Amino acid sequence: MIHHIGIAVSSIHNSLSFYQDVLKFPLIKIENVESQGVKVAFLDAGNVKIELLEPLHEHSPIAKFIEKRGQGIHHLAVTEGDIESRLKKLKEDGFQLIDESPRIGADQNKIAFMHPKSTDGILLEWCQPKGE
Amino acid sequence: MIHHIGIAVSSIHNSLSFYQDVLKFPLIKIENVESQGVKVAFLDAGNVKIELLEPLHEHSPIAKFIEKRGQGIHHLAVTEGDIESRLKKLKEDGFQLIDESPRIGADQNKIAFMHPKSTDGILLEWCQPKGE
Repeated sequence: MIHHIGIAVSSIHNSLSFYQDVLKFPLIKIENVESQGVKVAFLDAGNVKIELLEPLHEHSPIAKFIEKRGQGIHHLAVTEGDIESRLKKLKEDGFQLIDESPRIGADQNKIAFMHPKSTDGILLEWCQPKGE
Repeated sequence: MIHHIGIAVSSIHNSLSFYQDVLKFPLIKIENVESQGVKVAFLDAGNVKIELLEPLHEHSPIAKFIEKRGQGIHHLAVTEGDIESRLKKLKEDGFQLIDESPRIGADQNKIAFMHPKSTDGILLEWCQPKGE
């Protein structure tokens, strides 16, 4: 299951109307995730969520992504029921992880990123929704 | 609804095991779309499809994407029931389209891409599945 698709934008305020008014994806909520330096808007695309990511400051990883590559699709998040076991197994199998143990992301989910070197170029997030 | 997530890879053969064996996404099928210079593998992520795109030759848009940006997430495809009307309306509303009329993509779907300048950086495909 894809939990959400992360998209880096310079301004949620400016980008929101395309997703809400053209694509007709309802806004679920907007929150700041200070630990990652991002403001996040979740939208409901029906079968999957869209996560718009706006940098809160210039040191945010999203600010660096936009500076280097421009606005655009940033990552895919896959739902995982037991993120600790998953990360342990991935490490044993030789996959390169950005986060070797989970941290708390948007919506209080437990999340961890794999390195794109291990995934043929995609930034993949494992996401264990809060309460699971 | 997100119809599929398109991911550019150098080799479907090399990348497939990550999607099948690690993410546990079953392979639906592999086909060549000669008109777009790509070999395509569809996988079932449960709530949405993953489309791996491998260039068939160096003039393929996917070859150029990989040369410029590396392997990675290439586009998002949104399901649309009436693609002709959608494209007409988008053009009237001033959106920049790569395809002003639909062409036939993988799986015989009618598809059309918007220009990333019109979508704050994402390559968005409208996709009308065959028979709809």
